[in-house]
Amino acid sequence: MAAANEFAGLRVVLVGARNPLNIGAAARAMSNFGVRHLRVVNPYTVGFREARSAVGASALLARAKEYPTVAEAVADCSLVVGTTAVRHRELQHPLRRLEYGARVIRKQLGSSRVALLFGSEKFGLSNAALSHCHWLMRIPTCEENISMNLGQAVAVCLYELARDAKAARQPEKLKRANSGQLERMTTMVLEGMRASGYLDRRPIADVEERIRRLVRRLKLRADDSTAWLGILRQMAWKLSGGSKRP
Amino acid sequence: MAAANEFAGLRVVLVGARNPLNIGAAARAMSNFGVRHLRVVNPYTVGFREARSAVGASALLARAKEYPTVAEAVADCSLVVGTTAVRHRELQHPLRRLEYGARVIRKQLGSSRVALLFGSEKFGLSNAALSHCHWLMRIPTCEENISMNLGQAVAVCLYELARDAKAARQPEKLKRANSGQLERMTTMVLEGMRASGYLDRRPIADVEERIRRLVRRLKLRADDSTAWLGILRQMAWKLSGGSKRP
Repeated sequence: MAAANEFAGLRVVLVGARNPLNIGAAARAMSNFGVRHLRVVNPYTVGFREARSAVGASALLARAKEYPTVAEAVADCSLVVGTTAVRHRELQHPLRRLEYGARVIRKQLGSSRVALLFGSEKFGLSNAALSHCHWLMRIPTCEENISMNLGQAVAVCLYELARDAKAARQPEKLKRANSGQLERMTTMVLEGMRASGYLDRRPIADVEERIRRLVRRLKLRADDSTAWLGILRQMAWKLSGGSKRP
Repeated sequence: MAAANEFAGLRVVLVGARNPLNIGAAARAMSNFGVRHLRVVNPYTVGFREARSAVGASALLARAKEYPTVAEAVADCSLVVGTTAVRHRELQHPLRRLEYGARVIRKQLGSSRVALLFGSEKFGLSNAALSHCHWLMRIPTCEENISMNLGQAVAVCLYELARDAKAARQPEKLKRANSGQLERMTTMVLEGMRASGYLDRRPIADVEERIRRLVRRLKLRADDSTAWLGILRQMAWKLSGGSKRP
């Protein structure tokens, strides 16, 4: 997770958004990923004012700044990136996939302000709005339905910015049972098998080795091994007559 | 972008979803990322039936299957993964970050069916629902607001599944102007500077080398260089008296 202040220089700019629900959803995604500054260009005024003053509207939404033009909304940003669903238009702009574009933005945020523009639900960004952008970024959606919901597009873009590339390679540490625990488990399973008469009915060659391998393939967690040992011990005890407490 | 059939084995399972708008948003995100099979467990019935039969409801939503229990919804899946916003609960389950969990799911999808469970907007997945899961996955959201909107959570999870890890390192190829184009540009700038009297007013040592480097730092696109050359040629022509067409 990126530290919140890593995104201090990021401005999410919604241009001509129509649906106040979508503006609210964009604000929610921003707060999920630690992005604090929302700018809104020329929204359908009533809807936006309503969303902003709604009971329960987030502080982020209440603090959102409204601008009459894209030029004013991005004036203090040194990198302006537009988002688009379009793949092969007669592009006036370089088009980058989100995975790569996000990397470039992250780097830029180290030294200067970046504006990330989202167009209206219906029309996307106009050519006039696009002309303020240094380059465009697209989310890699399917050919069959390339156009995303505004709130979801904002969520996915900010997720990609906040995502930790290293985390894909580093599983969270899970403490696995150690060999001692696995061996006690093996012993207990064998004891249960013997006590239950399983081995008399179906003798197994090299039974110890087989069960040892079987237990290792469980990928048993350390904190679960105690529980399993308890259960097996109880069963083995009962099977062997239950003469004294296990 | 993953091919659509890479996700043939994936089942998105919404458990106890309340808001038909959110079910619709989940379906839309699925179609954006090429995931086709939606299962719904015990939704608030009226809302779901409405969403499904609404004019304009996607085919995906219309085909969604309804189940009375989680057990039935995941019965044919060999890996069941729950999503959660929670970070440090007294976990009965291994918890993986989305980046890593998605990798494991992608691998599993090569050979078997995987169910990805999302809980209700209000309560998330219940302990009963969680007990069907092999492990849990969390989206790396901020401490201040860890809980995501359902449709946005589905979008982000499916994006991470569809995302191409390699794309972060490979910029799409942009054809840059070649040295010949850059040199013509350099010549034209120099010509304009001379013709405009710039160099008489402020003579520059090694002017050619300086302008050559200046032009190289522009990172000019090949298809833009023609336009720039035209503009500069016209200016130089006008500056030098406009005696004949450039």
